[in-house]
Amino acid sequence: MSKPLILQTDFGLADGAVSAMYGVAYSVDENLRIFDLTHDIQPYNVWDASYRLIQTVNYWKEGSVFVSVVDPGVGSARRSIAVKIKGGQYVITPDNGTLTHLKKIIGIEEAREIDETVHRLPNSGESYTFHGRDIYAYTSAKLASGLITFEEIGPKVDVISIVELPTVDPVFDQDIIHGVIDVLDIRFGSLWTNIPRELFKQLRVSFGERVEICIEHEHRIVYKNVLVYAKSFADVSTGETLLYTNSLDQMAVAINQGSFAKAYNIGTGIHWKISIRRAPKVIYE
Amino acid sequence: MSKPLILQTDFGLADGAVSAMYGVAYSVDENLRIFDLTHDIQPYNVWDASYRLIQTVNYWKEGSVFVSVVDPGVGSARRSIAVKIKGGQYVITPDNGTLTHLKKIIGIEEAREIDETVHRLPNSGESYTFHGRDIYAYTSAKLASGLITFEEIGPKVDVISIVELPTVDPVFDQDIIHGVIDVLDIRFGSLWTNIPRELFKQLRVSFGERVEICIEHEHRIVYKNVLVYAKSFADVSTGETLLYTNSLDQMAVAINQGSFAKAYNIGTGIHWKISIRRAPKVIYE
Amino acid sequence: MSKPLILQTDFGLADGAVSAMYGVAYSVDENLRIFDLTHDIQPYNVWDASYRLIQTVNYWKEGSVFVSVVDPGVGSARRSIAVKIKGGQYVITPDNGTLTHLKKIIGIEEAREIDETVHRLPNSGESYTFHGRDIYAYTSAKLASGLITFEEIGPKVDVISIVELPTVDPVFDQDIIHGVIDVLDIRFGSLWTNIPRELFKQLRVSFGERVEICIEHEHRIVYKNVLVYAKSFADVSTGETLLYTNSLDQMAVAINQGSFAKAYNIGTGIHWKISIRRAPKVIYE
Repeated sequence: MSKPLILQTDFGLADGAVSAMYGVAYSVDENLRIFDLTHDIQPYNVWDASYRLIQTVNYWKEGSVFVSVVDPGVGSARRSIAVKIKGGQYVITPDNGTLTHLKKIIGIEEAREIDETVHRLPNSGESYTFHGRDIYAYTSAKLASGLITFEEIGPKVDVISIVELPTVDPVFDQDIIHGVIDVLDIRFGSLWTNIPRELFKQLRVSFGERVEICIEHEHRIVYKNVLVYAKSFADVSTGETLLYTNSLDQMAVAINQGSFAKAYNIGTGIHWKISIRRAPKVIYE
Repeated sequence: MSKPLILQTDFGLADGAVSAMYGVAYSVDENLRIFDLTHDIQPYNVWDASYRLIQTVNYWKEGSVFVSVVDPGVGSARRSIAVKIKGGQYVITPDNGTLTHLKKIIGIEEAREIDETVHRLPNSGESYTFHGRDIYAYTSAKLASGLITFEEIGPKVDVISIVELPTVDPVFDQDIIHGVIDVLDIRFGSLWTNIPRELFKQLRVSFGERVEICIEHEHRIVYKNVLVYAKSFADVSTGETLLYTNSLDQMAVAINQGSFAKAYNIGTGIHWKISIRRAPKVIYE
Repeated sequence: MSKPLILQTDFGLADGAVSAMYGVAYSVDENLRIFDLTHDIQPYNVWDASYRLIQTVNYWKEGSVFVSVVDPGVGSARRSIAVKIKGGQYVITPDNGTLTHLKKIIGIEEAREIDETVHRLPNSGESYTFHGRDIYAYTSAKLASGLITFEEIGPKVDVISIVELPTVDPVFDQDIIHGVIDVLDIRFGSLWTNIPRELFKQLRVSFGERVEICIEHEHRIVYKNVLVYAKSFADVSTGETLLYTNSLDQMAVAINQGSFAKAYNIGTGIHWKISIRRAPKVIYE
């Protein structure tokens, strides 16, 4: 039986680009199950593409084939690669940093470079701007349907050579945890940090206790305040801030039914630093 | 054969949340057919979630399983329930008002509370903020695939106890029909009222005749004018207003190729009142 | 085996309209594979609907059934038709110009008018505003599933009678190619012209050479400048303009990682003229 094929792009759904990819994949194998991760990655935002993969791959079975096409360098010399990650899922993508989080957090077992002379939609040789359709959809559909093996995709690539975007590791230092804001939970305006719950545990804060959060950007303090560590949004009042564990088991900050990101103009990336400590006791004398 | 699974959320499609739900459902049963109702419910808008269900359930066959996750109270004590409606479709949702229209208009035959100790994605016990993935997608996929029966979902719930949002019934009073604006046909800016065609018929207005529409909000008249009762948009000029019967057999108001809602700043809900009467005759003496 | 059914509308995905169409199609045949072209056609924009079809049909197999419902005249006397195009795909749509590009560029082999007395969702006779659900989804599902043949859709229609929107042909005249801007690559703000690569070849411009582009609207020059003819975006600097061959083998203009359309307020249609010539030599004396 064929494996599911899951597509991610920054193409949006307002024109025919994604449907052309579906048509190519369907033509390879009529029984293929094709799904979307998202097509609303901000144009050229390779970082978010990388993050959305880490957010979803583990919920799809071994053998599932992901395609991610956020590709500012389409037509350049950047490689097209296919990787098998620990867990057994495959990802096919330009080698431009899209695999940053998978490589770092889950681990890549093996990588192949796509031999584009072999794996290209027939009669597409004069098209240099839509590899998503001509190479990625086509090759991934052949892999997902079992028409080719992973090994047949092309020559082996050294995993260590796979492009990574700069990341920062969270640090526990003198009762303060320092991290960065990795990404937004876009729809709800929550901040998702790179601080895992396991690290946060070292602060020994229980549900209902209070922490001090400090957010800095370019040496400016953007937010500094005390808020409660809650199990979920429903544990605080509407409009109240909270620290919680998100669905990826990382620490996150939100306003219940509001947007923390909009409220304080918060952005994402390694220059958006966040620290968490136990709330200081205030003693009135 | 498995039954179709239809998902509705307020998560949007810009991140990986919906795809994670798909992955969970697909992992339960690889042959499951999974579809979207919409994922663009305005965040936390339980009313619209309820309305979009009534707009679609009847077009899906007996046994179809709907999931609706618009859940401001995720992690609180609110129940997770599954219901069987008249017509034989199932809906799984937090019990927070999402079933208002189905209960009132179609009728709920039977309800069960989800036993979350049994029906939870393995190893998701520490996650309190994404029941859409960990409980709803997982449980609904098991129901749709036939792995569990409706009865196995959990203990029976008294249908009368299911949470309903406040609604207002349309009234026929002295040749005027009073109703409210339930929802917008978002894309086209039309107003969908809670006045059924059957009730409107009592005014004995024929296609091409004119009616007077009055829209009030918080005791202020927002719109009052005469317009034609038309079979469809094409019966009036571009830019002309009309009253028509919408695709749910309710009375609706629109501007042909314009947005009535934007033109007059119209909102929705029980405080947006609308009345319809035969257009008065104007006699010049 | 049933054929794939591909849906296009201007309904958006924020309410239940598209899901109702899916439900109707699924009810006709549970094994039907249903896909989206796009549902984000700008409301009533028949031109774009026509263009998105030409952008995708060739990537779907012979026998695939497309439905396009951008239908400002719903409920009027406009015909509902089904056509078979060269290549063997079918398209079902209101006859309002949606087939302009397919008729002109690919060619229509045969056309039938839908007999709406026969091909209508049972019990939908009182609904005049949602033919997408009641007629198009229902009829196309029956065709795609093989329950009816193309001939059974209704009486034959003369292909020449199919409505076409006005188009303009590109012209090669004294070393200048004159064309129009057909459509935007929405997400990336690139301009897609109606000038095919084959015609452009007559200028004998090689990759890396420079051309002069002039864009006019209503006798006003909106843009006139020299830019490079590049194989793909990666051949120019970030922020640099380029002329390239798009994924439909037509000439296109863009800013690498910027939006040409936004930068210069460019629109689309037959009144947005574009000309291309070899860049003039500048000689300093």
